[in-house]
Amino acid sequence: MPLAEPEIVRRLESRQPSAYVLASLRGFGQVDLQAALLTGVAILIALWVSGWENGLSATLGTLIATATAYALAVDRAGIALGLQGYAGCLTGIALFSSLGNHLATYVLIVIGAMMCTLLMAALGTFLTPYGLTPLTAPFCLVSGVMVVGAPSFERVWHGAPAAVASTTTGDTAMSWSALWHAFFNNISQVFLIDSWYVGLIMLVGLALAGLRVVLYAAAGSVLGIVAAWVLGAPTALIANGIYGYNAVLVAIAIGAVFMANTVWTGVYALFGAAASTGLTASLTSFFKPFGGHTFTWPFILTTWVLMAAVPLLPRLRRSG
Amino acid sequence: MPLAEPEIVRRLESRQPSAYVLASLRGFGQVDLQAALLTGVAILIALWVSGWENGLSATLGTLIATATAYALAVDRAGIALGLQGYAGCLTGIALFSSLGNHLATYVLIVIGAMMCTLLMAALGTFLTPYGLTPLTAPFCLVSGVMVVGAPSFERVWHGAPAAVASTTTGDTAMSWSALWHAFFNNISQVFLIDSWYVGLIMLVGLALAGLRVVLYAAAGSVLGIVAAWVLGAPTALIANGIYGYNAVLVAIAIGAVFMANTVWTGVYALFGAAASTGLTASLTSFFKPFGGHTFTWPFILTTWVLMAAVPLLPRLRRSG
Amino acid sequence: MPLAEPEIVRRLESRQPSAYVLASLRGFGQVDLQAALLTGVAILIALWVSGWENGLSATLGTLIATATAYALAVDRAGIALGLQGYAGCLTGIALFSSLGNHLATYVLIVIGAMMCTLLMAALGTFLTPYGLTPLTAPFCLVSGVMVVGAPSFERVWHGAPAAVASTTTGDTAMSWSALWHAFFNNISQVFLIDSWYVGLIMLVGLALAGLRVVLYAAAGSVLGIVAAWVLGAPTALIANGIYGYNAVLVAIAIGAVFMANTVWTGVYALFGAAASTGLTASLTSFFKPFGGHTFTWPFILTTWVLMAAVPLLPRLRRSG
Repeated sequence: MPLAEPEIVRRLESRQPSAYVLASLRGFGQVDLQAALLTGVAILIALWVSGWENGLSATLGTLIATATAYALAVDRAGIALGLQGYAGCLTGIALFSSLGNHLATYVLIVIGAMMCTLLMAALGTFLTPYGLTPLTAPFCLVSGVMVVGAPSFERVWHGAPAAVASTTTGDTAMSWSALWHAFFNNISQVFLIDSWYVGLIMLVGLALAGLRVVLYAAAGSVLGIVAAWVLGAPTALIANGIYGYNAVLVAIAIGAVFMANTVWTGVYALFGAAASTGLTASLTSFFKPFGGHTFTWPFILTTWVLMAAVPLLPRLRRSG
Repeated sequence: MPLAEPEIVRRLESRQPSAYVLASLRGFGQVDLQAALLTGVAILIALWVSGWENGLSATLGTLIATATAYALAVDRAGIALGLQGYAGCLTGIALFSSLGNHLATYVLIVIGAMMCTLLMAALGTFLTPYGLTPLTAPFCLVSGVMVVGAPSFERVWHGAPAAVASTTTGDTAMSWSALWHAFFNNISQVFLIDSWYVGLIMLVGLALAGLRVVLYAAAGSVLGIVAAWVLGAPTALIANGIYGYNAVLVAIAIGAVFMANTVWTGVYALFGAAASTGLTASLTSFFKPFGGHTFTWPFILTTWVLMAAVPLLPRLRRSG
Repeated sequence: MPLAEPEIVRRLESRQPSAYVLASLRGFGQVDLQAALLTGVAILIALWVSGWENGLSATLGTLIATATAYALAVDRAGIALGLQGYAGCLTGIALFSSLGNHLATYVLIVIGAMMCTLLMAALGTFLTPYGLTPLTAPFCLVSGVMVVGAPSFERVWHGAPAAVASTTTGDTAMSWSALWHAFFNNISQVFLIDSWYVGLIMLVGLALAGLRVVLYAAAGSVLGIVAAWVLGAPTALIANGIYGYNAVLVAIAIGAVFMANTVWTGVYALFGAAASTGLTASLTSFFKPFGGHTFTWPFILTTWVLMAAVPLLPRLRRSG
């Protein structure tokens, strides 16, 4: 998540109220590892287009997480780049979609967003020695813990929302409709949303962050579809983006953010994208017995492993 | 677990037999992160009051773990402060309460206490770079592994003891009786014991360690009750201390041991105490499918995360 | 996995094609932590004796993993010692035995072996600060993820192979036949193979690596049998080596490879061997709900814990 834009950042730090708004806007883009302001705006629009509860939950989570970072005096440059907001954004959406539209849910979003800032700092301590970043792990940890614990608490739990589709059954024949839906849903499912036009708006937002970013995002989506189809995943799950959103994130992270722009990087990024697709099935099976959620763990684990391997693989080079 | 008392420690190291007894006595207090001798004595009394098997198991575990540390030439200053005994203490109680009063159980307590000393060293290696300590993790790992594995072995397993209450059902109306029972049981459940007067003796022991310690212990207990009630946990579980003992430990660790004595520390400690209450439900659900035990994992994970976050949060300061 | 033999290694690096073959041959021996060429040859023979699919899968995995390491320019000295091949070897056998003799399985073996090389590098980054090595963890991670995910994919999954025996039931009376079968099966089960003469050939291979190696391997096998019998494991599971192969690996690793050759090391190695036997039951219970496999995790975790503890235990000394 570099993209320093140091001049803008410096100017932001002098004017507080607008700095807070801009930092939060960038937070939406940082879910896709992009600090570009317009990307954040496009994604915010896409989230509200997908439904007002999604928009509200994501906005609330982002604002609270960013504000918590200010309150705890976290490094200003990181806040300004949106690095303290994105985990709160996803936590908002995840808690709404798992716990439903209740007052208790919004209270939990506030608390969860605050916890995201603490976990961002804690994971920073653990990962910095290895040159890794927390990615979306604070979101996965906070939301995962809350969703797993929720059924134990009467004032939090109002029954499970819509059933999640099983990953083990279903027809595997591919169709044109499934294909193009999958391509855009892989983008929107990064935000736990199953909607092709939301994905399209987000893809436009990624294009605003640069050609390399949008190309890797698109390539990741295609690789996710191909890998899932080759393995023999049910078409319905491919079509709604379940098997591809981690591939999109891995392709962006490895291909367009953390590594030098070389041919080896391209191969590495696409290999990682395909690997994360397979890992999605494994983690879903792992989480099932105790009611945990896969969220973006396949992306996180794949990216951590691939980036941790780089120092011992001279063919590959980190960026910067 | 500082509380160095350097003169006493130095004197202890010269006279071996009494040093061993004193180090073991301090081990009982270190379960609550206190090195004060009188705290250890009060807790030892409380354990024997709760039942001779608890007393015997805890004493055996503490003595063996401390002796193992001497035999392996572990740092003497740490042994003298009781830092090698407390995991053995809890392992003794946990194995007795999970496997019952059988000869095989006491043999396992001896082996488990020895393993605690090895895990204390191994975790020390892993955690020291981050400025963290093993807390009760050696106990949780050794006892957890043994309890999960036990049903596979005929000579170890004599059937499950009393059923553990489910965390997902039950009345949530609060009563005065439930309230004050919960307050004291939250203290005694740190040692897996459900008895208000045992908790009362232990609280007296904590008072002997200092005002700040007993106040944070009491505040942690209250926060645990409040958080569990607000979330909507079954009253019966709140009353027997299941939802509050981790809050007590987090409040002591963050509020009275590891951090500087500031207002921010107080807020942080109480926030952590409440968070550990929620985490208790999540971890219990996580452990259920494979028969694992929650033990003090919510305390450990909460405290590790909060302490690891401190270096990146300038508002907060570690002690010492 | 030292055993540097620096002259041979240096010569290997000058002649590429033969270097690749020799590095791969050493890879088979490195499953038992031995770099000796003859040990690798003996184990390769044993694998083909056990069945052509085992031989083919193991050979394919080893060759691909080693070739991937060359392609990614991994440190040549490590490749020459076989350190890049052994995880691929085990991945080959594990995928064949879990997914059956299908074309898709062999494709997965190729991909899995490549992933082993990446995970070897990633774990190297994480473990080097603690003076630990990845052991067989790359194999356990890659194969575990693939086996857990496989049932979700139609083109990968062709139904479960032979049922795995339960660890919780069965007669516990010991017999001479069970005893000697167990002794050799503990050696062959390191490669997931249940065959006494395969174990015998492998033991001969270990003898070719040196007296200390074969003595610790044999002692580990005996300790595994004794510990499992004392705990009360079903005789059938002891006889087919399920409870002893981790003990063999721990005894070799601690007793003959990573630590100085002292009496304390011997006690430590045999204690670890017995502990890994108990841990086998716990991990099997942990993996059961989500369909994971125990593989060599008990060896890995036991060895990591014991080696990480050494710096804080002055009685014990690492080798080298």
